[in-house]
Amino acid sequence: MAKGSVPSAVINRLCLYHRCLEEIRGAEGGKDKLNYVSSSKIAAMTGINPAQIRKDLTYFGEFGKRGKGYPAVDLLRELEKILGLDRKWSVIIAGAGNLGKALVRYKGFSSRGFLIEGIFDQDPLKIGKKIGHIFIYDVKEMDKFIRAKDIDIGVLVVPAQSAQEVAEKMVEGGIKAILNFAPARIDLPAKIRIHNVDLSFEFEELTYYLSQ
Amino acid sequence: MAKGSVPSAVINRLCLYHRCLEEIRGAEGGKDKLNYVSSSKIAAMTGINPAQIRKDLTYFGEFGKRGKGYPAVDLLRELEKILGLDRKWSVIIAGAGNLGKALVRYKGFSSRGFLIEGIFDQDPLKIGKKIGHIFIYDVKEMDKFIRAKDIDIGVLVVPAQSAQEVAEKMVEGGIKAILNFAPARIDLPAKIRIHNVDLSFEFEELTYYLSQ
Repeated sequence: MAKGSVPSAVINRLCLYHRCLEEIRGAEGGKDKLNYVSSSKIAAMTGINPAQIRKDLTYFGEFGKRGKGYPAVDLLRELEKILGLDRKWSVIIAGAGNLGKALVRYKGFSSRGFLIEGIFDQDPLKIGKKIGHIFIYDVKEMDKFIRAKDIDIGVLVVPAQSAQEVAEKMVEGGIKAILNFAPARIDLPAKIRIHNVDLSFEFEELTYYLSQ
Repeated sequence: MAKGSVPSAVINRLCLYHRCLEEIRGAEGGKDKLNYVSSSKIAAMTGINPAQIRKDLTYFGEFGKRGKGYPAVDLLRELEKILGLDRKWSVIIAGAGNLGKALVRYKGFSSRGFLIEGIFDQDPLKIGKKIGHIFIYDVKEMDKFIRAKDIDIGVLVVPAQSAQEVAEKMVEGGIKAILNFAPARIDLPAKIRIHNVDLSFEFEELTYYLSQ
């Protein structure tokens, strides 16, 4: 796999290349054999310059053929492997509010291998109920549940003031990665990977263009 | 402002630099006068290489001083101006489901100048009600509303099968930019800026690290 540590900006770009190849596959009507794809084609689709793309991909070995580009199917599979998208991941959600509910019902997760195994809340009126097919459990049982079901990823959609406490409970259970939607910085041991989601970020690319 | 057209990857990175400077300002306790910040400091925080950062910033003029870096406050203000974050933007949300509700209540929007003016739905049981302080209106009135209130940005949180139709209604009203949470590709005139949000994307950076 990767030689040495790879900057997170590279990983972010690999996610973009992966999407881009999926799109190419989709556009070619799901044909099993894709042709070669050049770094300039990926560049045109992602806005990232071709030299950067070639450099990013060399972290993981020699994929391409000079003058021909990359074999698209192989590159797609390789990126899936690198990014851990060739397997299933088990997920729990802490917080059964509107955003928690929306995430449980979000179609894109299960189709990409992110399987939501349970929702946790502290509200007695919610505990024992279901959202879709997924049960809402007492947050007090969360660490036990994580251990028993070997959960990979915890999603935090609790209010800012309880984010730290709930995140620590996840870590107690043995979770290694947290996706944090709560508008709060959480402070955890360095070995735990945290990804903070800020939805207002999504607007900012639009406002640039509206300002021109 | 920018000389010529700027690739969208650059704009994405400018958003990251902006966040990074905000964080530095926060860490320095809101002091009005910040010191100089070097491209290598921004690099360490974002994982983007310093040469790329310097190159991105030259699209917009000569900010930095050789050997000193960038005056942090000026750079922050300049990025706000470039990204259109120094003003308020009016927003409507189409779709009063769980995700629509969650977005209305999301604290991060108004504090960043994104003001939600109305929610639109087709469900007679929802129309006339409120989410927080915001009214739910009939989607049939959406284009009139957009025109009357001069709305800047439309947020699509409708089911995939109605995304195209609702997006077209937004454009009829005069909207120039759409943030699309619906899991559907929408096809609009090229002058309309569309940003597709895929929440499963947020997981993918985590799975890379979990796979190592």
